[in-house]
Amino acid sequence: MKKLKIGIIGVGRLGYEHACNIANRVPGSELVAICDASLDRAKAVAEELGVTAVYNDPKALCNDPNVEAVAIVTNTASHVEMIGYAMDAGKHVFCEKPLAETVEKCKEAEKIIEAHPDLIFMLGFMRRFDHSYRIAEKKMEAGDMILVRCYSQDPISIIEGTLDYAPRSGGQFIDMSIHDIDLIRWLTGSEPKNLWAIGGCYEFKQYKDWDDGDNVSCLMQCENDAMAFFFAGRAAAHGSHVETEIVGTRGTLRISGIPTDSMVEVMSSHGVCRECYQDFITRWHDAYITEIEEFCDCVATGRKAAPGVYDGTKSTNIAFKCKESFLSNKQLTL
Amino acid sequence: MKKLKIGIIGVGRLGYEHACNIANRVPGSELVAICDASLDRAKAVAEELGVTAVYNDPKALCNDPNVEAVAIVTNTASHVEMIGYAMDAGKHVFCEKPLAETVEKCKEAEKIIEAHPDLIFMLGFMRRFDHSYRIAEKKMEAGDMILVRCYSQDPISIIEGTLDYAPRSGGQFIDMSIHDIDLIRWLTGSEPKNLWAIGGCYEFKQYKDWDDGDNVSCLMQCENDAMAFFFAGRAAAHGSHVETEIVGTRGTLRISGIPTDSMVEVMSSHGVCRECYQDFITRWHDAYITEIEEFCDCVATGRKAAPGVYDGTKSTNIAFKCKESFLSNKQLTL
Amino acid sequence: MKKLKIGIIGVGRLGYEHACNIANRVPGSELVAICDASLDRAKAVAEELGVTAVYNDPKALCNDPNVEAVAIVTNTASHVEMIGYAMDAGKHVFCEKPLAETVEKCKEAEKIIEAHPDLIFMLGFMRRFDHSYRIAEKKMEAGDMILVRCYSQDPISIIEGTLDYAPRSGGQFIDMSIHDIDLIRWLTGSEPKNLWAIGGCYEFKQYKDWDDGDNVSCLMQCENDAMAFFFAGRAAAHGSHVETEIVGTRGTLRISGIPTDSMVEVMSSHGVCRECYQDFITRWHDAYITEIEEFCDCVATGRKAAPGVYDGTKSTNIAFKCKESFLSNKQLTL
Amino acid sequence: MKKLKIGIIGVGRLGYEHACNIANRVPGSELVAICDASLDRAKAVAEELGVTAVYNDPKALCNDPNVEAVAIVTNTASHVEMIGYAMDAGKHVFCEKPLAETVEKCKEAEKIIEAHPDLIFMLGFMRRFDHSYRIAEKKMEAGDMILVRCYSQDPISIIEGTLDYAPRSGGQFIDMSIHDIDLIRWLTGSEPKNLWAIGGCYEFKQYKDWDDGDNVSCLMQCENDAMAFFFAGRAAAHGSHVETEIVGTRGTLRISGIPTDSMVEVMSSHGVCRECYQDFITRWHDAYITEIEEFCDCVATGRKAAPGVYDGTKSTNIAFKCKESFLSNKQLTL
Repeated sequence: MKKLKIGIIGVGRLGYEHACNIANRVPGSELVAICDASLDRAKAVAEELGVTAVYNDPKALCNDPNVEAVAIVTNTASHVEMIGYAMDAGKHVFCEKPLAETVEKCKEAEKIIEAHPDLIFMLGFMRRFDHSYRIAEKKMEAGDMILVRCYSQDPISIIEGTLDYAPRSGGQFIDMSIHDIDLIRWLTGSEPKNLWAIGGCYEFKQYKDWDDGDNVSCLMQCENDAMAFFFAGRAAAHGSHVETEIVGTRGTLRISGIPTDSMVEVMSSHGVCRECYQDFITRWHDAYITEIEEFCDCVATGRKAAPGVYDGTKSTNIAFKCKESFLSNKQLTL
Repeated sequence: MKKLKIGIIGVGRLGYEHACNIANRVPGSELVAICDASLDRAKAVAEELGVTAVYNDPKALCNDPNVEAVAIVTNTASHVEMIGYAMDAGKHVFCEKPLAETVEKCKEAEKIIEAHPDLIFMLGFMRRFDHSYRIAEKKMEAGDMILVRCYSQDPISIIEGTLDYAPRSGGQFIDMSIHDIDLIRWLTGSEPKNLWAIGGCYEFKQYKDWDDGDNVSCLMQCENDAMAFFFAGRAAAHGSHVETEIVGTRGTLRISGIPTDSMVEVMSSHGVCRECYQDFITRWHDAYITEIEEFCDCVATGRKAAPGVYDGTKSTNIAFKCKESFLSNKQLTL
Repeated sequence: MKKLKIGIIGVGRLGYEHACNIANRVPGSELVAICDASLDRAKAVAEELGVTAVYNDPKALCNDPNVEAVAIVTNTASHVEMIGYAMDAGKHVFCEKPLAETVEKCKEAEKIIEAHPDLIFMLGFMRRFDHSYRIAEKKMEAGDMILVRCYSQDPISIIEGTLDYAPRSGGQFIDMSIHDIDLIRWLTGSEPKNLWAIGGCYEFKQYKDWDDGDNVSCLMQCENDAMAFFFAGRAAAHGSHVETEIVGTRGTLRISGIPTDSMVEVMSSHGVCRECYQDFITRWHDAYITEIEEFCDCVATGRKAAPGVYDGTKSTNIAFKCKESFLSNKQLTL
Repeated sequence: MKKLKIGIIGVGRLGYEHACNIANRVPGSELVAICDASLDRAKAVAEELGVTAVYNDPKALCNDPNVEAVAIVTNTASHVEMIGYAMDAGKHVFCEKPLAETVEKCKEAEKIIEAHPDLIFMLGFMRRFDHSYRIAEKKMEAGDMILVRCYSQDPISIIEGTLDYAPRSGGQFIDMSIHDIDLIRWLTGSEPKNLWAIGGCYEFKQYKDWDDGDNVSCLMQCENDAMAFFFAGRAAAHGSHVETEIVGTRGTLRISGIPTDSMVEVMSSHGVCRECYQDFITRWHDAYITEIEEFCDCVATGRKAAPGVYDGTKSTNIAFKCKESFLSNKQLTL
């Protein structure tokens, strides 16, 4: 019944969600410290959640003796530095995806983590912990896998925030498709060996200025011969649409073909309609809780956590290869 | 390969549909004569469909020696008279539902048909011939039937025509629910022994003047203890919604839970929507063809047709009991 | 940020669920005391959840000065007594449904609660707090309500436990349909004025011995003329199927037409299948949390809680009328 | 009301379907002559459908003065020769897909057809005439198209016939994916400029011997920047699964996401299941009728038919490029 004492660094939108979960929704965790670049923000969240230790300096939070584990929800570029602070202070680490903004930085993270084999490190690819994905994983039977298809579409309703963040996001492949790259690696149990990525600026021409597209896709051939296709878009009229399909020789599993936010069907002059999730935080609400539960359990039992640092490096590397293929419009071999 | 030569009486909206099917879509039939109260209408349809024999007088069509069978698609009040003309002239008869506007008239029809045991008589409860209903019927397994639930909702988009016809229609139970009454008898293989019907004028107050409701429902207890519930409405926002559910001790079959007019899903700001049938002729297009195919096959093989005249009498009798229960707000025993 | 200190009486299957929620999943609550008829059970749960105050005597828990509110999850027959203990000790009360096993007992509960106007009382009709039902409630627009249809089907897979409990359950109407009776009252904002209930023993003949049916249904006419139909069954092959439909003059809302337990579609030789919830605790997991959140918020703000004691009396009264109608096979007026 | 007198060459499985449609289900057509490599087969079908002119020699059928138009449903390798016979005899031509087995042969067909500008030529890409595809086409709004995704999966239940025909079929791209290639060209209104095709032998290793895969996929970039992805498989457990999705900047249309063969949902221990089409003839039954109606209307009105010969050449050319890409595992530019 011992609760893991977690300090969180970064309480922006997603960080706040994690903070609430750690404080109130995960049985095995306790939120004991909060750090944010804005001390006011850190104080406000701390007051709301009844946390007394508030920091402006990440290193200070990591060195707080009451903190047993650190959750890193800062901007991507600072992840590896934060991992270093935390591990050097002997703390377990949960780090949001993506691991880092370059493959080199990912390798640095590997070194830090390898130097602390007794500390748990877990990367926040939360989709793996979603109820539907876990059911699908259990249903995957023996038999060859033929195709994995992944969609990640953001609703056009949140495009303003997306455009604001886009220049710092690393682009579609690093910021968004990395989720699908992780799913493809996880579900196929294999690595891509060839890929071709394409796309364009269909609605928002400004992506051109960032050497990016607002909608992109990629076809991959894996080492075990499974095919994989992903599509990422920024302008879905109907909502937040993350869909994954696994086609095998014994059957097909489709996850979230219609990403409905409830079990309500509305029959009106528009026909019979189901409404969709309008944002990713609502969509993955339970998965964000489950992944922290898993992290706590790994710490409690000493079990190795997955996804881990190598998943971070590999997905980042593939995402960069996708971007290279997209920019050169050439098929690439990994 | 001999085609059954059919003459049709009544080429209004549904009569025209039957005429086209008999002429062009049913392999075993040929349209050889047309009669309508409006001779101009009869001539126009005849010209379109390449039919030379045109009549204003139903008796004359029935006596046309080239006519082997007669399809009756006139108003309900004239059905029995037309059946008499046709059978007296030695012709097989396909007659639209409902059989007649009173139970007494139904009994007259029984007498006429009993007097001509060699002639085929079939009543047009087309739902029994719909592809989905036939699949459901085949899937019904041994085991006790618990509940049949039937919905019949007309779209509000066609309310003007509905209101025009309402005073002559016999009311919701005779005109509309009779389809569900037939389905309940057919699917349970039993007859109601107790029933209670209720309803009201929820949107169109004028139904009050006709001692009727725009939305009505009825709970029935059948002789074999199956329960049955039907609901009939005139104001569905989303379209023509006919749904039937069969709950048994071994499983449940739901037919047309969402009565979609195609396999298209539209993802837009309204959510993920499927559009519904907007009128009954489109919904039952194939069933109207299949029932005439069945009629032709019964004539060709001498097989007795179903539904037959007793189905007409029984469903009419039940519909009148429903109306009596609705008007008295009392549970009735049959 | 003050957490409401709750003591729970009864940690059987559902009580344990509530205990876990109060302890770990509801931000505003803290589990401080546990009482169970089995002291061993109480101790085991207390140890798991880190609770130190353990009781065998409900009165003792109620008098524990550390307890601010009491959650009653005992058998129905003891509810009113427990409410008395708690309120006499000045504690707020959350009580599981149904309120009591007779209408007279419900009236007693009313008196106790009326005598303590400053204490919050809330009855556990958790369906009102389910995400989908809340969305449906928000979508209900002005315009007359025509029909509410409610299904409550338990999966046949849990029939053994159901049969064990059946003799003490009060029967289908009191134990199971009371949920739908509450939904009908809540959704129509009206009370039934006429009803007719039927049913039978379709699969499990032993219900006959308990003057009950394994499958029952009821048609109701409400004071505002809305129609309501409910169906309750114990033998659904596919899972726990709770479905509610609201037909209005401006559109229809269907909640949980297919009660799927995830967003996974399985394409196999069985067709395209979605699996359903296999038990009510999983189905209503989030609703059980949300209702306790609401209870805590009512205590914190002094807001009156709903559903309240009169909802308990009224639903119980209607359920008994349903049973009377079922046993006499007569339509009844309330 | 004049009916187009059609002679058919080839009455195998699909030819027989066309023959029945021409004879009995298309109002504007009449079946007047039948030719088949097997004279016995031709005679049997002729007797069943009441056709008197029976041929073993295609040229003889083409020269029958009673024949106004010829439907060619022979093996692909003979299509162009048949087109020549028919057009040289002054007959309109409906020809099944694919147009020919090589691009060179397609060019020959172009020359023949260009030499007879007054004769109607139509190629049998029936999917364009399916009710759902036509509805989708009408719903496509202004706005840029982002992605077209096409699935064509045959059920594993028919694999024996598929394997028999496979060596003569031209392979997955020519035989099967050509439908999706046509859909992509039709829906995007553009031509692919870059493509990469991959695949393998996941279940049926014998495809290796034919330089083919049992499951293949292809990513394409179109001249108008639309992306297109298709997947073709031979081993779907659940049925005949043809699905198409059109993602645009204003919304998404998904056609046949679940290719259900009826509106029946079965609730059983397998969950809530919908069964799928088990063969392509049932799936496209109505589309096969509609395309012949369109052909007759083009002949009657002198309107140019689509899809035409150039659609045949272009789709064949693209299919060969896909095959080349698949065999070389290289991205290709067209």
